Amino acid sequence: MTDATTEVPARPEALEWSIDTCTVQRALQVVGDRWSFVVLREIFLGVRRFDDMRVRTTIPRQVLTDRLVRLVEQGVLRREPYRQAGQRERHEYRLTPKGFALYPVLVALNDWGSSYYAEPEGPPLRFEHRDCGGDVHARLRCDAGHDVDEPREVLPAPGPGARRRGRPAPGHAG
Amino acid sequence: MTDATTEVPARPEALEWSIDTCTVQRALQVVGDRWSFVVLREIFLGVRRFDDMRVRTTIPRQVLTDRLVRLVEQGVLRREPYRQAGQRERHEYRLTPKGFALYPVLVALNDWGSSYYAEPEGPPLRFEHRDCGGDVHARLRCDAGHDVDEPREVLPAPGPGARRRGRPAPGHAG
Repeated sequence: MTDATTEVPARPEALEWSIDTCTVQRALQVVGDRWSFVVLREIFLGVRRFDDMRVRTTIPRQVLTDRLVRLVEQGVLRREPYRQAGQRERHEYRLTPKGFALYPVLVALNDWGSSYYAEPEGPPLRFEHRDCGGDVHARLRCDAGHDVDEPREVLPAPGPGARRRGRPAPGHAG
Repeated sequence: MTDATTEVPARPEALEWSIDTCTVQRALQVVGDRWSFVVLREIFLGVRRFDDMRVRTTIPRQVLTDRLVRLVEQGVLRREPYRQAGQRERHEYRLTPKGFALYPVLVALNDWGSSYYAEPEGPPLRFEHRDCGGDVHARLRCDAGHDVDEPREVLPAPGPGARRRGRPAPGHAG
């Protein structure tokens, strides 16, 4: 019976640290719902107009409106006016530099999805290096230039803004 | 008035292609809600037990249960039994290889969040290269080994499994 049970490990160090300022969680508050990221995928693929996004996706109209407003508010997208002959001015949505900075997230998601959820004939989407035609993937690398391909080589650690749990933030004395 | 409006571009090529088999979307169906990724963050950081996850996060109990079940069903996590003296057998949650393959997504999200949403003192979490101590980041690179740091160098393109919109899937003649 006890053969299958593992040793009780030490208390995880992460439990000492607050998640109040977690930047993963803050990123997820902006892009961490399925529809937001579907909207971003569309715009990365050049589909920039509300009606075109509706043609490709099954996003309910109000949800699409909400997500676009929020992504503009967060500075991920910007609205650009355009006008077709005889029609009122409309807007299309473009990525800002902050939006383009999500490219590694998009490519990493596509890498993972393509590894585990592609149809037999392969994934429907690839990212091509414009210069050489090679497939672009998201890879982990350290500041010293080492490729970090093994999960065990990566050690999550408290950063400069880490705060102990239960302590007030600096400047919030009281 | 029209100075601010842009030229009407060609119809985006993406509109020709179906999203039915999109592997980004399939990835998002597994990890693309905020709580699933918060659960994964906890486990990547070594917080593997239900009660410990509850201590750190504000995930409602039932939501946490649901997300853990789903991530186990999808093969992202596995349950490992353990027993503390005098208590019933419990389980902790470990990443499978498929789960560890999400490391680039987690690091890319943290990179982005840390760039735009960190407190002044810096991000609370870093990923360290165990061998050299350098910070690990998610970077785009092509199969030919070129770093791809400029968004304009990346060209989204139909992959081998791309399907035209409105056509039945192969093998689904009808």
